[in-house]
Amino acid sequence: MTIKAYAAQTAGGQLEPFEYDPGELAADQVEIDISSCGICHSDLSMLNNDWEMTEYPLVPGHEIVGKIGAVGERVTHLKPGQTVGLGWFSKSCMTCSECMSGNHNLCSTAEGVIVGRHGGFANKVRAHEGWVIPLPEGINVATAGPLFCGGITVFNPIIQNNIQPTDHVGVVGIGGLGHMALRFLRAWGCEITAFSTSPDKEAEARELGAHHFVNSRDSDALATLANSFGMILVAVNVELDWDGYISTLRPQGKLHIVGAAPSVSAAVFPLILGQKSIGGSPLGSPAMTATMLEFSARHGIEPVTEIFPLSKVNDAMEKLRSGKPRYRLVLENDLD
Amino acid sequence: MTIKAYAAQTAGGQLEPFEYDPGELAADQVEIDISSCGICHSDLSMLNNDWEMTEYPLVPGHEIVGKIGAVGERVTHLKPGQTVGLGWFSKSCMTCSECMSGNHNLCSTAEGVIVGRHGGFANKVRAHEGWVIPLPEGINVATAGPLFCGGITVFNPIIQNNIQPTDHVGVVGIGGLGHMALRFLRAWGCEITAFSTSPDKEAEARELGAHHFVNSRDSDALATLANSFGMILVAVNVELDWDGYISTLRPQGKLHIVGAAPSVSAAVFPLILGQKSIGGSPLGSPAMTATMLEFSARHGIEPVTEIFPLSKVNDAMEKLRSGKPRYRLVLENDLD
Repeated sequence: MTIKAYAAQTAGGQLEPFEYDPGELAADQVEIDISSCGICHSDLSMLNNDWEMTEYPLVPGHEIVGKIGAVGERVTHLKPGQTVGLGWFSKSCMTCSECMSGNHNLCSTAEGVIVGRHGGFANKVRAHEGWVIPLPEGINVATAGPLFCGGITVFNPIIQNNIQPTDHVGVVGIGGLGHMALRFLRAWGCEITAFSTSPDKEAEARELGAHHFVNSRDSDALATLANSFGMILVAVNVELDWDGYISTLRPQGKLHIVGAAPSVSAAVFPLILGQKSIGGSPLGSPAMTATMLEFSARHGIEPVTEIFPLSKVNDAMEKLRSGKPRYRLVLENDLD
Repeated sequence: MTIKAYAAQTAGGQLEPFEYDPGELAADQVEIDISSCGICHSDLSMLNNDWEMTEYPLVPGHEIVGKIGAVGERVTHLKPGQTVGLGWFSKSCMTCSECMSGNHNLCSTAEGVIVGRHGGFANKVRAHEGWVIPLPEGINVATAGPLFCGGITVFNPIIQNNIQPTDHVGVVGIGGLGHMALRFLRAWGCEITAFSTSPDKEAEARELGAHHFVNSRDSDALATLANSFGMILVAVNVELDWDGYISTLRPQGKLHIVGAAPSVSAAVFPLILGQKSIGGSPLGSPAMTATMLEFSARHGIEPVTEIFPLSKVNDAMEKLRSGKPRYRLVLENDLD
C-alpha cells in the first residue's frame, strides 16, 4: 500500500506531492485515516532544519485528527472507526522509569512523528497505540488537531505547577500557543493578564479570556505589576526582560517557558528572596492529553483556527512564515 | 539598661566594644540573654557593606542561642528561662498574605536582625515573639546557633521541593551551608553526591553523609552524571557551569540556589525537554524552623563548629575571611 503526502525535498523547500510505502503495520501500531492536521511552528522549524535533525524528504504535520483505519494485531484498546488524535510524539519506549511513571513525554528515546519519519500532511499516518488518543464526545473534530501539540503544551504547565483557580496568571505572547492558554486558564477560574507586543490584539485577548491586557513593550507597565502573579507562562520564542517578568511574580511564583528562546538569564537574589523559579516543559503525557481533551469538551474550549485544504499547504506555510495566523492553521485532507 | 556588644564603626572595620540602650521592651518582644552566636558569611557581607544596606555602628550576629531574660507584656507563649534561638529575621508584619499563610520568611517588610538594628555579637538581643524559637530537648545548645540561619537555609529547599527519601540529590559546595545539607539529606534517606573544588574534603564529606564525591573542576565528571539528580542544591556564591549541572538533573529535576551568586543563565531547550527548573530560596519560616529543630534533635544533627570566645571576635572574622572554617564558627559570650 501507499501513503499519499506532501513532502519537502530540501531545507526550506516547497511541499510537493509525495508517496511512500509504510511497510507492514506493526503489532502495536495504529493507522489513522487523517481528516485534518494543524500546522505548528515547529513544522516550520523542521522544514527549515533549524534544529539540525531534519531528514528529507520531510512530510511535516503532528497535530493530527482522523479515524482509525487499522490496528496492529496486539492492539486491543482501540478499534477501527474511532475518532482519534496524535501530536508531537509517535512512540515512547513504554518501559523506562519515566514511561512507567506516566511521564511518557519525558522518555529519553521517545520518537517524534516527523523526526526521521513521515507526519500528518498526508492521507494516513501510523503511531504506537500508546500515543493515539480518542476524542471524547463534545470535541469539535474539525478544529481539534492543534489541541494535540499547541494545546497540550500550554495545558501541561497548569498541571505541573499546580495552578489553582485562585491564582493570578500572566501569559506572554498571544499567538498559536498563548491564545489557547487564555482559554484554558479562563475555564480554570484564574485571573489572567495577557502580555503582547501587538496592542491591536487587546480586544481578541479579552474575548479569549484575559481580564487584563498589557503591551509588553511598555516597561513601566511591568514595574506597576510587581508581586502579582503565581505563574507567568512564556509562549514566545524570543529572549525577554527576564528580571522584569520575575519581579511581577509573587513570592513562590514560577516563570514557566514553553517557547524555545535560546537562553534565559536572571539575577539570583530575587529568586532567593522571593523563593521563585524558572522552568520549562514540553507537551504532556498521553494520560494528561486525555484529561485535557475531557476538560476542553466540558468547557467548550477549542483553538481559533483558519482552515486550508491540504492541497494549498504552501499557501498555509507562507501565512505561518509571515507571522499572520490568528491563531492556528489547520489543513483539511483533500487527497483522495 | 545597657546592652554590651562588639560593633564596627566603618565598612570592613575591626569589631570593638560597644554599648547601646535598647529602650523599653515592646509588648510583643522577647529579650534573649545570649549564650552564643554563630558567624554567617552574611555577617561578613554586612560588615563590608557588600549589599549597600549596612548602617554603622554595626553589631553583626544572627545565629543566636540563649535563655529568655524578659518578655513583653503581651507575650504569653514564651517564658523567661526558656532556651531559644533567633536567626536572620527579628520580626515580620504578621498580617500580610505571606505571614498569614505561614510564609513569614517571604514577608516583604520582614526586618533583619542586623539590618538597621543591632545583632547577636552581644550579651543580649531582642526580637518579635514570632521569630524566637524554643530549642527542643536533645539539641546541643553549644552548637545550635548556626541551625538558625545556615541550617534552615539548606533545610528549606528539601521541604519546598518536596524531596523524598528515594531521591538522588547533589550538593555543590561543602562549606558552612553545604556540610549541613549533607547531614540533613543523609538523615532524610536520600542518595547524596557532594561536589567540591577541594578534593581534600572528600573524606569529611563522606563522613558528613555523602555517598559520592565529585571534584567540581572536573567537567568530564559532570558529563558522566547526566540524568542523575532530582535536585542539585547550590550552596556556593559563585557562577557555575549552569548548563553542565542542569544536564545532571533527571527529568523534572530542580537546580536550587541558596548561595547568592550574581546571576544564573541557562539554555532553554534542556529546561523544556526535561521539564526542569532553576529556583532559589531564603531561610525558612518560624514554623519550618521549629520542624527543622525537631528533626535535628531526633537524628542528632548538629553543625560542625569551631568555638571562639566573643572577645576574640576579630580572630574569628579573620578566619572566615580566609575561607578556612570547617565548617561553622561560633562565638561564646564571655562578656560579663
